[in-house]
Amino acid sequence: MPADPDRAGPWGRAWRLLVGPPLSFRRISKEQITPVEGLSALSLDALTSVAYGPEAIVLVLAAAGAGALHLIVPITVAIVLLLAILVFSYRQVIDAYPGGGGAYAVSRANLGTGASLLAAASLTVDYTLTVAVSIAAGVSALASAFPSLASATVPICLGILALVTLMNLRGLGDTARAFLLPTMLFIVGMLAIIAVGLIHPLGLHARQPGHVLLPTRDLKAVTVLLVLKAFSAGCSALTGVEAIANGVPLFKEPRVKRAKLTEVLLGVILSVMLLGLAVLDHHWHIGPRSGDTVLSQIMAMSVGRTWAYYVVSINITVVLALAANTSFGGLPVLASLLARDHYLPHLFSLRGERQVYSNGIWVLALMAGVLLVAVNGDTNTLIPMFAIGVFTGFTLSQAGLVMHWRSERPRGWRHRAALNGLGAVATASATVIFLLTKFLAGAWVVVVTVPLFIYLFMRINRYYGHTSRALGIGTIPAPPVSRRLTVLVPVVTLSSLTSRAIGEALSMSDEVLAVHVAVEYSEEAEPHLDELQRMWRKWHPGVRLRILRTEYASVVNPIVELIDELCQKGDRQLVVLIPVAIPEKLRYSLLHNHMDLVLSNALRNRPDVVVARAGMRIEADPPS
Amino acid sequence: MPADPDRAGPWGRAWRLLVGPPLSFRRISKEQITPVEGLSALSLDALTSVAYGPEAIVLVLAAAGAGALHLIVPITVAIVLLLAILVFSYRQVIDAYPGGGGAYAVSRANLGTGASLLAAASLTVDYTLTVAVSIAAGVSALASAFPSLASATVPICLGILALVTLMNLRGLGDTARAFLLPTMLFIVGMLAIIAVGLIHPLGLHARQPGHVLLPTRDLKAVTVLLVLKAFSAGCSALTGVEAIANGVPLFKEPRVKRAKLTEVLLGVILSVMLLGLAVLDHHWHIGPRSGDTVLSQIMAMSVGRTWAYYVVSINITVVLALAANTSFGGLPVLASLLARDHYLPHLFSLRGERQVYSNGIWVLALMAGVLLVAVNGDTNTLIPMFAIGVFTGFTLSQAGLVMHWRSERPRGWRHRAALNGLGAVATASATVIFLLTKFLAGAWVVVVTVPLFIYLFMRINRYYGHTSRALGIGTIPAPPVSRRLTVLVPVVTLSSLTSRAIGEALSMSDEVLAVHVAVEYSEEAEPHLDELQRMWRKWHPGVRLRILRTEYASVVNPIVELIDELCQKGDRQLVVLIPVAIPEKLRYSLLHNHMDLVLSNALRNRPDVVVARAGMRIEADPPS
Repeated sequence: MPADPDRAGPWGRAWRLLVGPPLSFRRISKEQITPVEGLSALSLDALTSVAYGPEAIVLVLAAAGAGALHLIVPITVAIVLLLAILVFSYRQVIDAYPGGGGAYAVSRANLGTGASLLAAASLTVDYTLTVAVSIAAGVSALASAFPSLASATVPICLGILALVTLMNLRGLGDTARAFLLPTMLFIVGMLAIIAVGLIHPLGLHARQPGHVLLPTRDLKAVTVLLVLKAFSAGCSALTGVEAIANGVPLFKEPRVKRAKLTEVLLGVILSVMLLGLAVLDHHWHIGPRSGDTVLSQIMAMSVGRTWAYYVVSINITVVLALAANTSFGGLPVLASLLARDHYLPHLFSLRGERQVYSNGIWVLALMAGVLLVAVNGDTNTLIPMFAIGVFTGFTLSQAGLVMHWRSERPRGWRHRAALNGLGAVATASATVIFLLTKFLAGAWVVVVTVPLFIYLFMRINRYYGHTSRALGIGTIPAPPVSRRLTVLVPVVTLSSLTSRAIGEALSMSDEVLAVHVAVEYSEEAEPHLDELQRMWRKWHPGVRLRILRTEYASVVNPIVELIDELCQKGDRQLVVLIPVAIPEKLRYSLLHNHMDLVLSNALRNRPDVVVARAGMRIEADPPS
Repeated sequence: MPADPDRAGPWGRAWRLLVGPPLSFRRISKEQITPVEGLSALSLDALTSVAYGPEAIVLVLAAAGAGALHLIVPITVAIVLLLAILVFSYRQVIDAYPGGGGAYAVSRANLGTGASLLAAASLTVDYTLTVAVSIAAGVSALASAFPSLASATVPICLGILALVTLMNLRGLGDTARAFLLPTMLFIVGMLAIIAVGLIHPLGLHARQPGHVLLPTRDLKAVTVLLVLKAFSAGCSALTGVEAIANGVPLFKEPRVKRAKLTEVLLGVILSVMLLGLAVLDHHWHIGPRSGDTVLSQIMAMSVGRTWAYYVVSINITVVLALAANTSFGGLPVLASLLARDHYLPHLFSLRGERQVYSNGIWVLALMAGVLLVAVNGDTNTLIPMFAIGVFTGFTLSQAGLVMHWRSERPRGWRHRAALNGLGAVATASATVIFLLTKFLAGAWVVVVTVPLFIYLFMRINRYYGHTSRALGIGTIPAPPVSRRLTVLVPVVTLSSLTSRAIGEALSMSDEVLAVHVAVEYSEEAEPHLDELQRMWRKWHPGVRLRILRTEYASVVNPIVELIDELCQKGDRQLVVLIPVAIPEKLRYSLLHNHMDLVLSNALRNRPDVVVARAGMRIEADPPS
């Protein structure tokens, strides 16, 4: 996009209206957030996972029949215990990396390249999945409240994705204050619904849409495998716990203290929600239902399908969209770090005009969009792929921290290393459980994708290393050599554009050669060629017009052969100056400049020839 | 495609293998065909229409019940009469335009621009429809013989289309001799089947696949409208009659005599086939059937589902594919004429390396492919759109001929003008009947498309006229003006590529300015910039490095502003020389040259600046 709006076309101006004018880095507000704002800016991904975590557990248990549903309470207790370990582990990450300690940075510093690339690949996969899962779950919540929307799931998903993408391209991605109201409404609403449900439910006899998906009889015994499957499915509720530790620099001073407080706040609220929902689900024997999420059923049982239900449902969609936004804050920054370390194309480290990493934003939007279309907007198809990457990141972070404490050895480092070690073991075990129990259901996708990403990173890194050596970057190059210059101007027909191009060629050098390719299609004479030669003589520009005859249709090959011939004479620099007409409207380009198209393409790989273009504008036809 | 196979990549080499090496115009064989060869080279489109023409009649009549089927005989007689008029009219076209008289050329010479564009647009639509109808009918014939293929109709259609396209890109399109065998097999086979059917049918009790699509009772009265509908549907059998007159130059001397003989041969054979099939259809009360064409039913009744039936069926598919090929001979040539007259982009008048008009071939293949997918490969959906364009062309040709005779006034011109006048009136009436009876069923598509094409032709013509005036083509331009030259070299980092670019810039001019854009992302110091300046001083190339500082993310805008500033100083020519790395493999381009991408794009519309590229090859990494 050009910065000058007068030069941009109507499309450029419309786009500028959407994303806003370019921003100076001085005008980006450096936000300083409080713990409560931290919940909305950094913890929405974790908090909103109550919208799909409990449902994922119920869906696994329901396969064994209604009798297995009571297991939701002990399984949730186990998940909450794991959450507690994670919260305390990440409080220590905050202590150790107050500058923001993502899994990539921590494992790069402590565990080496291999582990850091594993972390980067896992996080890439999981950021993408977080966007897709959050948006899909948000649309499920909406469709539960308004069943008529169910048929438009995928378009609504893509619409929300487009909105979130645009918001991030504008650079509004991390305005914590704007997110505060929906976040508070979400937390208060959920806690109120759980309280009403536990004390005095209002809507016990509300009619639920859809039909029960539970088998009528218990189909199989409750096995250890089933319990592990349900546990691993429920762990999807823990994704996003690491975000606060990544975002420490955003907090007001004293940063570390405030960030650690936020981490505890998150742990407490999420635990209460998960346990409350599990107890209510067990109490009311709620199983999966078509077109009605488990959370929606619990809400309807608690407060009825009243205005409160609808307000909270719509708000859930909003906060889930904002949770998707968290990944847009994460992946582009990760990609820029990888690009700076030469593991991704450097263009991921370039900021857009709004000072955001726009290439990373576009790629994340594209990957999430493809995923949403591929799974038809269904949350539960995504769940088995989800959390593996996050838990791999958890494990690497915690293991890295153990190494960090061992090398730094501050006061009480043994105690700290033990806590992070417990976190590493717990999350590693969870990762293994995920892989074993969810492999065939979808985890294999992650198992295939992560190594592919690592391979890609390494290939790119190797290529950049090679290029840097080939170009001698970091060393003083040889002095520049100036040589005699010959300028070649291909001529199709004689016009004021030809005059302009020959003039520009003469500005570069005295040795200018105009070239015309005469293609013979038949044995007959060529009136066009004779006419051109006659007019050239009459014009008399002081430049020779050399005619290249060919029996073949290609006008390029004779010119390339002439270039080869001139290059072999050695010690001279060759410039090919192609005259091009620049039409007012881009679509008219189809009508011009075929010579430019084929000749540039043929010379694309010729470092020995400088290809230049002499342009002349064709003004629009005045309306007749 | 580069001509040198060593320079083409593996894809280029594979493509070269498919289409063959470049051809010199001297090596294109100038075929000289006999009347019998003329049948295969120029008349297949007309002859093969027996595969869908009778079926189209039966389908219309069947709507009124089995009782209406007997009308096929009188309707076919009417069509054969029209055919006779056309044959004699076109024999006169051959007399008048022995150089090949397409509807576009004839109406341009005699009726003016408007009529010629109407002819061109109609023919464009109909060439496309001929390809689609022929291929679809060919696949129907195949699926009637081998019902299991019916589910793959569209892929088979597209496969045949791809084959025909490739054949034409190779330039084998008009090798009449290669087509002779299938054409003769087709003619002899059809005549034999009709003869056996009339004299002593062998397969009367053969089992037919599919089910009868006739209503069990007569649903409506036989009206004039129904008869006209059936007639207009059947006229699809007459398309292609004009092709011989277009191809007169292909014949051996005496050309005119041989071409006229071919026209009569075509008329006689086609009449016999149409009448024979109509009589047999009437005799056996054959109606439409699912998955079994009318022609296939007649063949099965006549000779049974024996080897003869299968051989003829497969051959019908082959000759229909070759009939589609006729259009590939027609549309690209028409497009090249339109391009030469500035009604289509000039690139349609450029020949490919095989001396064929490859752009026209690609566009025809694309349009026919879209059409085949849109109608799901069903012949009968296409029939209502078909023939309108051809008959418009017929009418314009005949009307043009009347004007021709009136102005030339050779001996017996009144008699000749009367015959062509009769042809014009008959085909004009037929066109009106088509439009009235088939409008809602699909003819509206043609009614919409033809004016759109005409509008497109006129817009393009107007633009070319404007451009030609703006560039002063045809006049002697002003003498070329050489000016002082400043070369701007954007520098991102210091490398041997920088050295090379500065050297090339110094070859062009003494005034070289290296420019580095320092983007500030924070208030902190910039180690990269300091390092670059330090190394530049150490390198000491004799060229100043100018630093442009910006608080915005775009590196392009500061450079463009500098260019504006330099341009305002007037009287100097500006060249921007962008250093680019040329990687061995195209896909690595993503990793380099972001500056080139954004800067070239920003300067695309700047005729005051010459944009040039200084390339340096990055050789592939040696395998480690």
